[in-house]
Amino acid sequence: MQSPARQPPRVIIIGAGFGGLEAAKKLACRDVRLTIIDRTNYHLFQPLLYQVATAALSPADIAAPIRGILSKCRNVDVVLAEVESVEVETRKVKTNDRVFDYDYLIIATGARHSYFGHDEWEKLAPGLKSLEDAVELRRRILLAFEFAERTNDDAERQAAMTFVVIGGGPTGVEMAGAIAEISRYTLAKDFRHIDPSKARVILIEGAPRLLAAYPPDLSESARKQLVELGVDVRTDARVTDITESGVRYDSEFIPCRVKIWAAGNTASFVGKTLIAPVDRVGRVIVNDDLTIPGHPEVQVIGDLANFSHQTGEPLPGVSPVAMQQGRHAARNILRMIRGEKPTPFRYFDKGSMATIGRNKAVADLKVFHLSGLPAWLTWLFVHIIFLVGFRNRVLVLLQWAWAYLTFDKGARLITRNFQSEHRPPA
Amino acid sequence: MQSPARQPPRVIIIGAGFGGLEAAKKLACRDVRLTIIDRTNYHLFQPLLYQVATAALSPADIAAPIRGILSKCRNVDVVLAEVESVEVETRKVKTNDRVFDYDYLIIATGARHSYFGHDEWEKLAPGLKSLEDAVELRRRILLAFEFAERTNDDAERQAAMTFVVIGGGPTGVEMAGAIAEISRYTLAKDFRHIDPSKARVILIEGAPRLLAAYPPDLSESARKQLVELGVDVRTDARVTDITESGVRYDSEFIPCRVKIWAAGNTASFVGKTLIAPVDRVGRVIVNDDLTIPGHPEVQVIGDLANFSHQTGEPLPGVSPVAMQQGRHAARNILRMIRGEKPTPFRYFDKGSMATIGRNKAVADLKVFHLSGLPAWLTWLFVHIIFLVGFRNRVLVLLQWAWAYLTFDKGARLITRNFQSEHRPPA
Repeated sequence: MQSPARQPPRVIIIGAGFGGLEAAKKLACRDVRLTIIDRTNYHLFQPLLYQVATAALSPADIAAPIRGILSKCRNVDVVLAEVESVEVETRKVKTNDRVFDYDYLIIATGARHSYFGHDEWEKLAPGLKSLEDAVELRRRILLAFEFAERTNDDAERQAAMTFVVIGGGPTGVEMAGAIAEISRYTLAKDFRHIDPSKARVILIEGAPRLLAAYPPDLSESARKQLVELGVDVRTDARVTDITESGVRYDSEFIPCRVKIWAAGNTASFVGKTLIAPVDRVGRVIVNDDLTIPGHPEVQVIGDLANFSHQTGEPLPGVSPVAMQQGRHAARNILRMIRGEKPTPFRYFDKGSMATIGRNKAVADLKVFHLSGLPAWLTWLFVHIIFLVGFRNRVLVLLQWAWAYLTFDKGARLITRNFQSEHRPPA
Repeated sequence: MQSPARQPPRVIIIGAGFGGLEAAKKLACRDVRLTIIDRTNYHLFQPLLYQVATAALSPADIAAPIRGILSKCRNVDVVLAEVESVEVETRKVKTNDRVFDYDYLIIATGARHSYFGHDEWEKLAPGLKSLEDAVELRRRILLAFEFAERTNDDAERQAAMTFVVIGGGPTGVEMAGAIAEISRYTLAKDFRHIDPSKARVILIEGAPRLLAAYPPDLSESARKQLVELGVDVRTDARVTDITESGVRYDSEFIPCRVKIWAAGNTASFVGKTLIAPVDRVGRVIVNDDLTIPGHPEVQVIGDLANFSHQTGEPLPGVSPVAMQQGRHAARNILRMIRGEKPTPFRYFDKGSMATIGRNKAVADLKVFHLSGLPAWLTWLFVHIIFLVGFRNRVLVLLQWAWAYLTFDKGARLITRNFQSEHRPPA
């Protein structure tokens, strides 16, 4: 592959999540012209998003401006824009306001929620993918307690103090545990007419066990730890309807004000604009070197990719997969520029972890399994280490230490919509 | 004044700003039934709002949940609601969803922006009163640089890199200084196609000098310090029009994308629902003990009150006035409950301060004036001391230390509206 007239080749990375950012770091300060296109101006540390949703952290604690991360390398151009399509034949990326040409392309636009054809559920039961989602969920959870505090209607109060989390994967488990914790500890003393520790948190999972991707003993441990926190765990339960007033699953209707969706993902629409095969959830089926058929200059990584060459199954949509693929894609581009052949990708699985609450977590470290405090400490350590930006790490650690010692969570702010919903008459 | 059947008297405080919160602290854990009504669930430390607008701090750093501040006292009831009117004859406070009876009432609903009859300017040139305002201004400022980075049109780029602040009081001076600082230091290395340090910041003030409430030597010092930062200060300049594309003042038109309003205040509408005299900007003209004529059980404090008994002029709309009035109002209520006469209020003026930037500020400490580094250190010390909540104090101090040493500001996030404006096509 030859780039025009002595200029270094143009590499575009779409998406600055875990995969895109790792690729960008590998290509920054190298002899390429690198453009990173993202629709936000920050890299988001998604594993801690549930902590923003439950008022333990602030948005800026878990997000770092992309420009800032890469500002030292002059070959990096960061573009805030929404990608509309990729034309692989002409090697063009179209955004809302411009068209970019590339010699090499890495697509890392990830996934968003899927409501299994019930798009009308999205407003009723928001998911947790973006900072906006997290702030909106925080607002709904805190407003539900405020509403319960002032209503005189018993049924309404009960519904306001019932929180239903749909989906028993890592996000669902974390959200259910965190809501149970803030109601039992953080908010317990704040109200006069209700007892927040009486809040019901119900976790609904369609499969027979929580954390289906984990070994069964850890699923069982997660369930036990959630029950200890007071969470009502219901497995083998399929949600059939969501309305303003509650959630119906199988034959039961649960009246509740706040519903949280943690059940399904669908790959970003960008995958469908390529001329490449996609799977049932929209992931691009990639070659063993992460490229798409017929286009060695285009690589797809992370949650957008279906990579089944290693186990016969697609790799899971977790950050270590995305990060390793991002580094691999960047290395393959540097290889191709040097005229070498790209190498196949192999995922090195170091294990996975889900946190449930204070001193509560599960960790599958392949050679052994951890539960409870040891798992939680491991989780804490790994998440602090990988949090981008020294400043964020110190701030987050300090806030966790404070929250751990006092059970106080400082970010209990209800921002935006309350005011706009209730404008003063004059 | 006798309350029903042996129950302690009911005291309502409307508004948990500086005045309302001080009154609440004095009445918490005393023998009254205290209800605090606010339309947000947090107390906002307004003097640092400009730091949120300029990406140095996060909303949660300068806001503390009201329930949390007062949770130790069982006699305190916190209500999240929007007050619609006060009926002093029947002693009722009407909110959007309930009616409250009181024996004693403190009204501390403050002020909001006034656009001098040009309400259409509000959307074009937002002010800085709430967390939502601050996040919106941060978004506009950061998006302007993003726009300048990607446009190919010279005139558009210039307009995007021109920031006009209207009003040369403390808020205007702080905003102009802070925008100049982030463009010269924080953002300087982040962009490839523009040089953020070339951004123009123009501060427009109608009066002959900045900080009209300060002694003339400090006004002059503030002007000099702003000019050192590169701010273009224009006094004796009256804004006559604001449009999408710029600001017109006297005969000149300045093309600019971001305009910030720091010029006028008008008192909260709640004052007008009382049967009491109000001044030109809607402030309630109070008796010398902060009560309203004919109603010793109703006190009005802070920015909503026009208290002219001390100097013949209304006291300024600053937090020390509100805080001293809040404490005084609470003490007078306790006096009345004991059957004693309320005492007149007297403001003890310890001076005032405005910050301009790193090592730059002015302080009028009455016995002497400070400028530059000593004023800035005084400002820093006072603002850390008064910031509510130990956790916030430590976090804010740590972030300031970090920003001071590195010129890095961590909260450079563009949240919300960019995404909703540019939805992907599928």
